[in-house]
Amino acid sequence: MKATTTPVQIRVAQRSPPMVAQFHELINALEADEHVRVVVFDSAVDGYFLNHADFDAGLEDLTAMPPGPTGLQQWPDFLVRLTRAPVVSIALIRGRATGNGSEITLACDMSFASREKAIISQWEVGVGMVAGGGPMARLPQLIGRNRALEVLLSSEDIRSDQAEAYGYVNRALPDAELDASVDALATRIAGFDKWAIANTKRLVNTSLPPDVELGAGWDACIASLGRPAAQERIKALLARGFHKPGDVENRLGYYIGQLAD
Amino acid sequence: MKATTTPVQIRVAQRSPPMVAQFHELINALEADEHVRVVVFDSAVDGYFLNHADFDAGLEDLTAMPPGPTGLQQWPDFLVRLTRAPVVSIALIRGRATGNGSEITLACDMSFASREKAIISQWEVGVGMVAGGGPMARLPQLIGRNRALEVLLSSEDIRSDQAEAYGYVNRALPDAELDASVDALATRIAGFDKWAIANTKRLVNTSLPPDVELGAGWDACIASLGRPAAQERIKALLARGFHKPGDVENRLGYYIGQLAD
Amino acid sequence: MKATTTPVQIRVAQRSPPMVAQFHELINALEADEHVRVVVFDSAVDGYFLNHADFDAGLEDLTAMPPGPTGLQQWPDFLVRLTRAPVVSIALIRGRATGNGSEITLACDMSFASREKAIISQWEVGVGMVAGGGPMARLPQLIGRNRALEVLLSSEDIRSDQAEAYGYVNRALPDAELDASVDALATRIAGFDKWAIANTKRLVNTSLPPDVELGAGWDACIASLGRPAAQERIKALLARGFHKPGDVENRLGYYIGQLAD
Repeated sequence: MKATTTPVQIRVAQRSPPMVAQFHELINALEADEHVRVVVFDSAVDGYFLNHADFDAGLEDLTAMPPGPTGLQQWPDFLVRLTRAPVVSIALIRGRATGNGSEITLACDMSFASREKAIISQWEVGVGMVAGGGPMARLPQLIGRNRALEVLLSSEDIRSDQAEAYGYVNRALPDAELDASVDALATRIAGFDKWAIANTKRLVNTSLPPDVELGAGWDACIASLGRPAAQERIKALLARGFHKPGDVENRLGYYIGQLAD
Repeated sequence: MKATTTPVQIRVAQRSPPMVAQFHELINALEADEHVRVVVFDSAVDGYFLNHADFDAGLEDLTAMPPGPTGLQQWPDFLVRLTRAPVVSIALIRGRATGNGSEITLACDMSFASREKAIISQWEVGVGMVAGGGPMARLPQLIGRNRALEVLLSSEDIRSDQAEAYGYVNRALPDAELDASVDALATRIAGFDKWAIANTKRLVNTSLPPDVELGAGWDACIASLGRPAAQERIKALLARGFHKPGDVENRLGYYIGQLAD
Repeated sequence: MKATTTPVQIRVAQRSPPMVAQFHELINALEADEHVRVVVFDSAVDGYFLNHADFDAGLEDLTAMPPGPTGLQQWPDFLVRLTRAPVVSIALIRGRATGNGSEITLACDMSFASREKAIISQWEVGVGMVAGGGPMARLPQLIGRNRALEVLLSSEDIRSDQAEAYGYVNRALPDAELDASVDALATRIAGFDKWAIANTKRLVNTSLPPDVELGAGWDACIASLGRPAAQERIKALLARGFHKPGDVENRLGYYIGQLAD
């Protein structure tokens, strides 16, 4: 991360305790930095923006982490602080953004998706879980309650044209133009006055639901992980090849539909 | 209604005291059932999803009914409970959804409309009424205040393409694909875990305005029905053929525009 | 303004202390009138709907004006009262609607834009300012937080197709059809009952954020105008030809991008 007005690119992989810790280093730095005005999140992994949580990590590894400064657990703490930070955050989505990837998109101030290569989804209900990073709090305001419920309850893969039509992302752009378009926008905003940016964002954020809603979602997520319904479905998915590169990850929405009881 | 995971199809006709009583039997059963996960509302009447209230029924018949468990009168009580029920509700709209038909659509969790055959509207202001089933509370969050006011104040018939563009329905689908698409979605969700569905919906519902807003709308509706402005306009419409199959019902938006004083 | 049911057309130019005073005469009259049901705002100046504030007027001229009846300063006071007035307001946008022009659009109940000739924007952040007329309070509910932040933080010119896709305006219409379409809609609503209109609008307005949010935005705007960041950028724009007819006004989004530090 460069402490300049140049947009900063953050490359992310998969949520796990070490990743969550890295995100906290990042947000601590962003909150303290007096110069950075724009951060762009994109992915270093071909085919993925950021996918679901790491199920090899024990549940205890996540729940044992101390709460963050907001009083929320680490993952929602990071998301809430990103949303409220006095710096502009942009998600550049190429490849799959499932679960955590969608949640970080919703925590950012803006998002732009590859028309050909982006897929976004909240897959949790399909495996007996409740999402832990705030989509129940964020999506209804962004795309309306009815489309939010469709996204969450269908647990279906959503292509970027549909995501754009719903307002789930700001815009879908041709893949060949995506990087240049986001760079141009980030560079433009990085040339503006930080005080004006931060105060405008602060006033827009008055529209946000209270942060405790993300805490309630996190609690429901942890509770869901302890139930047989989720454990059995995740086990069944793992047996089919989930959690490693391959068809189950690539067509997760389809395979979730095969788990139905 | 089958107490299984199979989606349940509810076929409705026109709001009247008996219909409202049937909806209450339905919602009582849905709230008590531990297995039903998805209900689909569609229509048994060709050309109509669900139309405006029954104006042959005396106003007293409606207002004499005791309030429901929410403390609201019967119609808003049913709508609020459907919205908050731990079961997924889907409106499948083929034909006209005016007034009550739009209100039940807005109370459902999702809605899908026939591209060729669906028309949706809130016609009340055009006949001097205020809508009684919550669109003033529901539409601004779903489609934004400005489009909500256009829908409500124009009292115009809205084709499904426009309804989809505004987010009034989740999606408009080709008529030939509508049933199969909704069946597939309902069956998919019906295979998911009920606890995960119910808790996800509960958290999304935090975004709802307080239920008393539907009570305020109902009160304004009843007050409007007692005013000469509404009585004269409804009488004028009846004289032109309203309230029976025919051109006035089919092109209600047009005929309302002819009533202007 | 005609005190009839005929829609009233208001033609506006540029915000300045005299203009703000005229708007207050207008809103005083609208609130008191028992008959007017619809007002249409359009522009008498070719190429502009309503542009940014008058920077020749001293800041003191604006801040010295006494607050209005809402307790807010004159400009947000007018906007809030227009939004809450028991009369329907429609913005007919042909040409540029920047800053104040966008703010009056957001204060109206509906807006329709020329597909070929409308441009809408909030340019303030691009010149180191915070917008003073409520877009931070209004845009998130209308187009979602993420698109609201894109509009505000990019300070970019937005064509009407994009504005329609985002829900920033109700609809973009072919320029040749715009006047007739708005006239038809205004005339239709002007034939409806005023009580039903006013009560429906009152209930929709329950969804509005508290008016004090516009006061907070106004305060931030005034604070921004006193900072060197804004003063230097506005001075640089003036040196390039801003504030008089010409290329800087016509392509304001482009020229703002040239100011980056």
